[in-house]
Amino acid sequence: MKIRIGIMGYGNLGRGIECAVKQNEDMELAAVFTRRDPASVKILTEGVKVYKAEEAVSMKDKIDVMILCGGSATDLPQQTPEYVKYFNVIDSFDTHAKIPEHFDAVDAAAKASGNVGIISVGWDPGMFSLNRLYANAVLPDGKDYTFWGKGVSQGHSDAIRRIDGVLDARQYTVPVDSALEAVRSGANPELSTREKHTRECYVVAEDGADKARIENEIKTMPNYFADYDTTVHFISAEELKASHSGIPHGGFVIRCGKTGINGENDHIIEYSLKLDSNPEFTSSVLVAYARAAYRLSREGSSGCKTVFDIAPAYLIAQSGEEIRKHLL
Amino acid sequence: MKIRIGIMGYGNLGRGIECAVKQNEDMELAAVFTRRDPASVKILTEGVKVYKAEEAVSMKDKIDVMILCGGSATDLPQQTPEYVKYFNVIDSFDTHAKIPEHFDAVDAAAKASGNVGIISVGWDPGMFSLNRLYANAVLPDGKDYTFWGKGVSQGHSDAIRRIDGVLDARQYTVPVDSALEAVRSGANPELSTREKHTRECYVVAEDGADKARIENEIKTMPNYFADYDTTVHFISAEELKASHSGIPHGGFVIRCGKTGINGENDHIIEYSLKLDSNPEFTSSVLVAYARAAYRLSREGSSGCKTVFDIAPAYLIAQSGEEIRKHLL
Repeated sequence: MKIRIGIMGYGNLGRGIECAVKQNEDMELAAVFTRRDPASVKILTEGVKVYKAEEAVSMKDKIDVMILCGGSATDLPQQTPEYVKYFNVIDSFDTHAKIPEHFDAVDAAAKASGNVGIISVGWDPGMFSLNRLYANAVLPDGKDYTFWGKGVSQGHSDAIRRIDGVLDARQYTVPVDSALEAVRSGANPELSTREKHTRECYVVAEDGADKARIENEIKTMPNYFADYDTTVHFISAEELKASHSGIPHGGFVIRCGKTGINGENDHIIEYSLKLDSNPEFTSSVLVAYARAAYRLSREGSSGCKTVFDIAPAYLIAQSGEEIRKHLL
Repeated sequence: MKIRIGIMGYGNLGRGIECAVKQNEDMELAAVFTRRDPASVKILTEGVKVYKAEEAVSMKDKIDVMILCGGSATDLPQQTPEYVKYFNVIDSFDTHAKIPEHFDAVDAAAKASGNVGIISVGWDPGMFSLNRLYANAVLPDGKDYTFWGKGVSQGHSDAIRRIDGVLDARQYTVPVDSALEAVRSGANPELSTREKHTRECYVVAEDGADKARIENEIKTMPNYFADYDTTVHFISAEELKASHSGIPHGGFVIRCGKTGINGENDHIIEYSLKLDSNPEFTSSVLVAYARAAYRLSREGSSGCKTVFDIAPAYLIAQSGEEIRKHLL
């Protein structure tokens, strides 16, 4: 029997989940749930129905794992503790500072219901977190660096779009090559915000808009841009669509550490991602953890978990024998 | 109470374990065991004694985890199933083809004794295996590449030393940059052995030895060198000591995979290590897994495990709350 996956919320992430489920032969899409009018939502999988979000609970026996595709700001803090009452759930909650309270809320509800809830799954938090943990465990005397990009930051793109006279915008976060090289050299540099990343903005302005004013508003925007070296390019709507419609992202997690009786030997552990589609890659991680949630639940486990709590073997379809033979 | 570590075998790896234990405040070195005369073995830790290997079993209540530092060819196939009768054990068994039978032997003995045995720990097998598994789980439609180096291959150095007229030698395995770049570009190249790595040899010849013959014997040696582009440099014993006495190593695990409804998006996951000291890094991984063995054993777990079976949180000294707050 295949693992029956439900998708709650059908945006970029939900569609990515749908594609990822197709790549995993031990899974099938059971249903998609939306807050929109289900009739208005067209999905890619034949024979699978779209339901109103409110109908989900009544289908709890038809779904093994519900993947929650809402946002971290307002959806997931409410949805994850709620749905874990009825389902094993996975979310991609990524507000780092609020993870502890989210964990506690989901854990209480999951223990009460006997379900498994895996939170903060994706690549950061997610695969990057795993790599920070493994590297810290192996090299306790060391220093961590995380760089993001080159990739599209939705939040920064939105911030530009709110400026008067801006029709559309796309913002790329770009790691600074010389900073990356300094880290890789083992120099253990102290890097300021400005030294680690630059911000590149592609902006479509209204006809006749004051571009100098827009550029200045972007570059001086507190929190978002003021602490960075920011470049602003004004382009046409056509060029934005032609050259900047993808959602690439990625980044680097590097730990430099010392071993030896006097710390005489240096080691560098580096993990990097180069992603054509941020939401599709995130979805692929969520789906692997859905497999883990299903297996853990069948073993009788319950409660809230993160990527730190899941043994890697739970993530992959192949048996222990197969992975020892082919991947170890 | 600290985790009490025993070291079985005091070569490069054993000394690395000793250094790594010092970096972990929740651990202490309990004893070192050797097949040599204990009086002849000088260790780095004051107040810790060196014992004959045969004395180990009588000290089973004084050691929480025994780290086995023998070789994979003859030591570990015998030692790991034997010592897991008395101790939680960790080994770095790295004969990939024989891992399944080693696993079965250790598993049977560990289940009978109620101890935990974690095998094939280090970086390959070990951290590289983990990265292969995570990347395969997340991107099921993809292709794996593993490159090793630049680093010293002990086996290849030994093979050169066996040639008539050779006094000493050091062999480096070097990944081919253009092959790495082709993989990173997402081109999914099919790479032959020769295309992936070159071999660089530094050889100290006897006075008057026929260097042309030695070079030819190296370059045509089956299995070791014949399938590679090999460079041979004859140098003095002094230069070998001055410039080639370290044991650096490292490498790259890369997976390229596709997502999307028609596989239209490419993703590249890359993990790399750059290690000044292969044995000290391997030791650092072994010590982190010793912590996991201790914790699993205290939870009542038993049997043989690999890195695939261990949830990452078991590896690190900090609590679940701390790692969720600082590393997730």
